[in-house]
Amino acid sequence: MCPSMELKTMIKKLDFCTHYSVRVYYEDTDAGGVVYYANYLKFVERARTEFLREIGIPHEDIKKKWSVEFVVRSSLIDYIKPAFLDDLLEVRTCCVEVRGASSTLKQVVLKEDTLIVDTTIKIACISMENSRAVKMPSDIRVAFDRIKIT
Amino acid sequence: MCPSMELKTMIKKLDFCTHYSVRVYYEDTDAGGVVYYANYLKFVERARTEFLREIGIPHEDIKKKWSVEFVVRSSLIDYIKPAFLDDLLEVRTCCVEVRGASSTLKQVVLKEDTLIVDTTIKIACISMENSRAVKMPSDIRVAFDRIKIT
Amino acid sequence: MCPSMELKTMIKKLDFCTHYSVRVYYEDTDAGGVVYYANYLKFVERARTEFLREIGIPHEDIKKKWSVEFVVRSSLIDYIKPAFLDDLLEVRTCCVEVRGASSTLKQVVLKEDTLIVDTTIKIACISMENSRAVKMPSDIRVAFDRIKIT
Amino acid sequence: MCPSMELKTMIKKLDFCTHYSVRVYYEDTDAGGVVYYANYLKFVERARTEFLREIGIPHEDIKKKWSVEFVVRSSLIDYIKPAFLDDLLEVRTCCVEVRGASSTLKQVVLKEDTLIVDTTIKIACISMENSRAVKMPSDIRVAFDRIKIT
Repeated sequence: MCPSMELKTMIKKLDFCTHYSVRVYYEDTDAGGVVYYANYLKFVERARTEFLREIGIPHEDIKKKWSVEFVVRSSLIDYIKPAFLDDLLEVRTCCVEVRGASSTLKQVVLKEDTLIVDTTIKIACISMENSRAVKMPSDIRVAFDRIKIT
Repeated sequence: MCPSMELKTMIKKLDFCTHYSVRVYYEDTDAGGVVYYANYLKFVERARTEFLREIGIPHEDIKKKWSVEFVVRSSLIDYIKPAFLDDLLEVRTCCVEVRGASSTLKQVVLKEDTLIVDTTIKIACISMENSRAVKMPSDIRVAFDRIKIT
Repeated sequence: MCPSMELKTMIKKLDFCTHYSVRVYYEDTDAGGVVYYANYLKFVERARTEFLREIGIPHEDIKKKWSVEFVVRSSLIDYIKPAFLDDLLEVRTCCVEVRGASSTLKQVVLKEDTLIVDTTIKIACISMENSRAVKMPSDIRVAFDRIKIT
Repeated sequence: MCPSMELKTMIKKLDFCTHYSVRVYYEDTDAGGVVYYANYLKFVERARTEFLREIGIPHEDIKKKWSVEFVVRSSLIDYIKPAFLDDLLEVRTCCVEVRGASSTLKQVVLKEDTLIVDTTIKIACISMENSRAVKMPSDIRVAFDRIKIT
């Protein structure tokens, strides 16, 4: 799959996003010699945790302050190129949509300038009391809105 | 999220699909007390391996016979309900699309009659020589076509 | 490493132990083409959970009934032979020592008659209230004693 | 378990060893709310890979140069204290024994000054041709000897 012009533009935009480095170790690979397909969801979650910390709404704080937390509602993953043992990957994370009770993130995994994996992750805000979807507290919403890419 | 009529119809159809049981152990859960979101991709891969075995095209055979293998091109996962430690889950797998060099599978994870996770997995046939997409050998194509749900 | 006479005797004894089957999937392997060394601890935990269920003291029951749970205090793992994708392994579990607040299990992983991995796992009984070691309730102790191998 | 004087001395010695940081993410934890017991083997392998790189004998180089690689022969893990989501852990690695075809490493996981996990990992040098144990090339032996703690 040849990265389209649209994709190049997207990656360029992602320059302005949060960067997170991941080294590929044995635990991440499988007998096919490549990174196991489920493990990219681990990489993007690590990056997402640091992303939320950076934009001022880390997991722990929002639990304590508002008794809410984020859960993943859906993950879409396109596997473009394989990654290998010892590769140094980079995850770039940005927010592409903000709604009342959810937010959609774009998270791509790159190896230098090559796109390895392209994901779209929808996270929803739920009450810790009953696990139901709730409106995001306005501080959280503002944090997402401020860094949203359009 | 209330399963729609469409979903109910779909699950009913899936009665005719391959069933695979998964018990949830500690390794599958996280500190949120639920199955970790990446691990559903492990469950559906286990089920997919057995599904391919059942329809007569196991990994090993197609490697030896045609020097091709399957790689996952994309995964779409909708998280409907959480699953917990000790749950006995069931993965149902069926084929919903067959194309020249790829096939799309529907794989759902159920807990009794409750839909936990709904996935759509696109797998592509690649040459083991150069890792490029190749037309599926006709025996493989026939195997998918025979069990395709429409 | 050639299994010693002692080991053969031990495996024979293990015939009388709880058996648990594990199929090796992609998730379990690494880029070396073999089962990743940490994953044997997953296999033996799955087997241990079923073992505790079989001898009448499943996790959930002992939590509810006595407010205690088991934690692993130490794991010793000897890697004898590698295991590969698609292998059908068997875990045999038995109890080799029972003390006031802890129990030591022998858990071996076999591929047919070949010893793959040999583990010794010490589990301790802790109070769910304060996570401190406590004496095992006598019903638990009896369950272990009854099946102990000497 | 109260860390003995011996352990304190050992940790002090480990000050001079290679340090490697690990942040605990959701993927590392289980429904017990703590780091899952098998995952410490992942942490120490990450650290071991960087340790080998630092002392000048990274995986890739020794494969290319001498057609040998390291495999783990045994792992001994003592679980002293639990670690939790978001903890920042540190793995310290050093070499405690060098033999003809194998080397034994001490790898401890710390949270600030608290010992979380204490491991002893024996790695063996094998030929890539036939997977049999072989004498370590003298450059590798020298690298281990130079940093061995006595």
